[in-house]
Amino acid sequence: MKQSWRPGTMIYPLPAVLVSCGSTEQTRNLITVAWTGTICSDPAMCYISVQRPRYSHHILMEEMEFTINLTTERMARATDWCGVRSGREYDKWRETGLTPVKGQMVGCYYIEESPVSIECRVKEVVHLGTHDMFIADVLNVIVDDRYIDAQTGALRLEDAGLIAYAHGHYYTLGRELGHFGFSVRKSPKKGGGRR
Amino acid sequence: MKQSWRPGTMIYPLPAVLVSCGSTEQTRNLITVAWTGTICSDPAMCYISVQRPRYSHHILMEEMEFTINLTTERMARATDWCGVRSGREYDKWRETGLTPVKGQMVGCYYIEESPVSIECRVKEVVHLGTHDMFIADVLNVIVDDRYIDAQTGALRLEDAGLIAYAHGHYYTLGRELGHFGFSVRKSPKKGGGRR
Repeated sequence: MKQSWRPGTMIYPLPAVLVSCGSTEQTRNLITVAWTGTICSDPAMCYISVQRPRYSHHILMEEMEFTINLTTERMARATDWCGVRSGREYDKWRETGLTPVKGQMVGCYYIEESPVSIECRVKEVVHLGTHDMFIADVLNVIVDDRYIDAQTGALRLEDAGLIAYAHGHYYTLGRELGHFGFSVRKSPKKGGGRR
Repeated sequence: MKQSWRPGTMIYPLPAVLVSCGSTEQTRNLITVAWTGTICSDPAMCYISVQRPRYSHHILMEEMEFTINLTTERMARATDWCGVRSGREYDKWRETGLTPVKGQMVGCYYIEESPVSIECRVKEVVHLGTHDMFIADVLNVIVDDRYIDAQTGALRLEDAGLIAYAHGHYYTLGRELGHFGFSVRKSPKKGGGRR
């Protein structure tokens, strides 16, 4: 049986990324964001939605740049902590022990411990309600080479221990069910599909 | 060591939802979408990004409504299949065996087998590049009551077997790492945080 619920935010699972912003040691901050995703493949574009009262909001509005840092099981506690504490009261970099590295294409810092950091420039800010959506161009992707296969050059993101967020809980990724396209592969080998 | 890659779509893990659209038995279709997410909490708003050449694109443009159906391990093969096949050539409902149920607040059908279906009305279409972003209001959330705790009324989405998509692979969700807020709970009990 089905129940109808009032409108709500029920798209899951989502990433729980650490967004870094602020181009100086004084202003740099970290903010945990699940309202994020890809909006266009070419050009590569993405968004983050941030509530106006949040400390990072004015930094984003002033600098119009941010970096999306993917998070891992090892970073789960820091990810959660940056989602419940404010940069007004804490130096989140110092408190979490995450290592800031000066960006390459943007002024803000990226997280050394993150397997993938995505440098973005805001193109448009859309005022929606509780949240403003920052629509951005991807300028650069910084990848930890420990996840790059030395033989093939392919990114083995499955080794990074990424985490997902679903309806108030954080999870590891579990069993692989198959590659994109596995359902139309002739071979009966499960998960044998290739993009 | 870090490597810089050219701009790309590297935000993961993402949901791999089945979007249903089309309000008649002749036009109804299913499309697999990972470029989706929440963009505002209140009012509840979300988006899907769809390539213009895809068969569903003109249905979306004409009817300006769609339903986001969350997908599960049982639906993984159908989800992948709907991502590589076109509604121009197949009746995807018939081929996948998924059960169409007429929507409540929108004309399109939702998937009976989906634990959560989110009915949406398009508010704006933003032309970006390869993809158009359909920005939408959430009108209604349809929940399978087998995942609703009879005692508390809470949604036990963790029992639904949701799947995630990351860099060309589908995964189950794995181990729970904690509730939102677990990092600031006084109790040492892991995952004891409450929103």
